[in-house]
Amino acid sequence: MTQLEQSLQGLKYDDAGLIPAIIIDAATKQVLMMAYMNGQSLLETIQTGKTHFWSRSRKKYWMKGEESGHVQQVQAVYTDCDKDTLLIEVVQQGAACHEGFYSCFYRRLDEQGQWQVVGEPIFDPKSVYKKAK
Amino acid sequence: MTQLEQSLQGLKYDDAGLIPAIIIDAATKQVLMMAYMNGQSLLETIQTGKTHFWSRSRKKYWMKGEESGHVQQVQAVYTDCDKDTLLIEVVQQGAACHEGFYSCFYRRLDEQGQWQVVGEPIFDPKSVYKKAK
Repeated sequence: MTQLEQSLQGLKYDDAGLIPAIIIDAATKQVLMMAYMNGQSLLETIQTGKTHFWSRSRKKYWMKGEESGHVQQVQAVYTDCDKDTLLIEVVQQGAACHEGFYSCFYRRLDEQGQWQVVGEPIFDPKSVYKKAK
Repeated sequence: MTQLEQSLQGLKYDDAGLIPAIIIDAATKQVLMMAYMNGQSLLETIQTGKTHFWSRSRKKYWMKGEESGHVQQVQAVYTDCDKDTLLIEVVQQGAACHEGFYSCFYRRLDEQGQWQVVGEPIFDPKSVYKKAK
């Protein structure tokens, strides 16, 4: 077993074999999205330098940007004290959110208890994704 | 039902009734930690202005800083496109990590595939936590 495989095996995956990965912009440190990886997609993320995830709803591997071209180039991989969460710094091509915002976290709770859209849309999802999501 | 309760009910909780909350420093935007909330701890977080979580291992509510004094004062609450993850901006008292680092994400994967400690310890856990964790 390589040193890398050993380090990845030392992480704590949940009962479904998944670990959450928080993706941040390497330049601004802005949180872009959170998605889930398993051992295989994490290894691919590190070996290819592009983020790969496991989709819990679609039950399949996906590479961020495989359809939109909005790939994420990995700059650094961190883990936390409990080794049950990842933090990954990336250079984001295009935008992270499939709804057209740079970050998926584009809604803020206001003082009336309502979610307000605070992000600026930077692309039109209809022109980027041909298939219905 | 209040507007706030309605907004929080519109979030997607997992099968255990939990939603992951990414905590970031309001000033630097650095990711400090990730932990899980349920509907009740999220409501308390918003109403008290201090982060409250649900501990999956200890099966109990906890307020960040209840033992260490390292509380987190909430500045803003965001959710993502899928409404299944929270992003919370806080002013952190002391440090976020119970191991003495400012951020829990103090380990980076190096080119040899090993986790390296890159965070600076800022307090001694033994002097802050009286009870064994």
